[in-house]
Amino acid sequence: MTETLFNKRLQVHVKCKDCEERRGNIRVSIELQLTTNPVHKRDLLVRLTDDTDPYFLYNLAISEEDFQSLKVQQGLLVDFASFPQKFIDLLNQCISEQDKENPRFLLQLSPSSPILDHSPAHLNVVETNAFKHLTHLSLKLLHGTDVEIKKYLAVCLSCVKEEKQQLEQRLKKTEDDLSRQLSYTQQ
Amino acid sequence: MTETLFNKRLQVHVKCKDCEERRGNIRVSIELQLTTNPVHKRDLLVRLTDDTDPYFLYNLAISEEDFQSLKVQQGLLVDFASFPQKFIDLLNQCISEQDKENPRFLLQLSPSSPILDHSPAHLNVVETNAFKHLTHLSLKLLHGTDVEIKKYLAVCLSCVKEEKQQLEQRLKKTEDDLSRQLSYTQQ
Repeated sequence: MTETLFNKRLQVHVKCKDCEERRGNIRVSIELQLTTNPVHKRDLLVRLTDDTDPYFLYNLAISEEDFQSLKVQQGLLVDFASFPQKFIDLLNQCISEQDKENPRFLLQLSPSSPILDHSPAHLNVVETNAFKHLTHLSLKLLHGTDVEIKKYLAVCLSCVKEEKQQLEQRLKKTEDDLSRQLSYTQQ
Repeated sequence: MTETLFNKRLQVHVKCKDCEERRGNIRVSIELQLTTNPVHKRDLLVRLTDDTDPYFLYNLAISEEDFQSLKVQQGLLVDFASFPQKFIDLLNQCISEQDKENPRFLLQLSPSSPILDHSPAHLNVVETNAFKHLTHLSLKLLHGTDVEIKKYLAVCLSCVKEEKQQLEQRLKKTEDDLSRQLSYTQQ
């Protein structure tokens, strides 16, 4: 069972070693995946995609054990259960600041090498105050494999086809309804 | 430069070694690809897809040299330039017969092993007369790799998104037009 906790398009500052910093938009999705077989297990899935680039896909799965290392490594003070909401709060803070010229909170994506390389990337939530840049959270995501991208695109395709079908039905219904009203009024 | 010569959904008889014959629908596309750099080159691209299964993809590229072997091997009497139209004629003949209980011409797909195996498959155009099954043409197609399927799905996704956008515009225009007419009539 998978529960979607967050799925929004956000402005991101792409910063790689050998290229100039640029702004782009990526979609961040956070899902909680519950497995009960063979053992009870909770995983937090973080996914970055780009609505305009079908091949852009970064994934991170955080298990409860992974989270313990992340917690120690980054000095986090929350537990696994409350981490997703804290992460979402940070992302929403970035959204609320993203139209400002000098946002206090921003989302940074730092691929280890140029983005075409399919190497891992760090997603950082960075606060900038008068004194310094403070990294609130830094997650290392892996670029999707061909198989993962293939599966992701198949799901996208099926969703867009479904939306298209609903639009076709709505268009037909709108045409019928309004033509009926029109002919009724003209009588 | 790629020119689409044929793109239709056809009934196909899937026949594999260890499973019962079943009927399905596949989309057959035939494209002529012209390359001028570094050398002038013409390739005929045959592609099988399934509108209901995003991972179903078989490809065959026939160059002019490949065609010479195919010609000898299958005793064909046409040259590379007129082959595509002959192939299309055969496919159209299959379409015109596909609703009959005992079609004289039919399209047969024979994977070497169960279809999930990603092994090559033969696409045969078979005529059945009172005496025997006559194979007019038999093409060996390769199952798409993950990279090929990924690219194919990205193209599909972009087409469906475009169609969806056009539908949204049409819906908006229809609503606007008819509301205007309605308010005009009611005055």
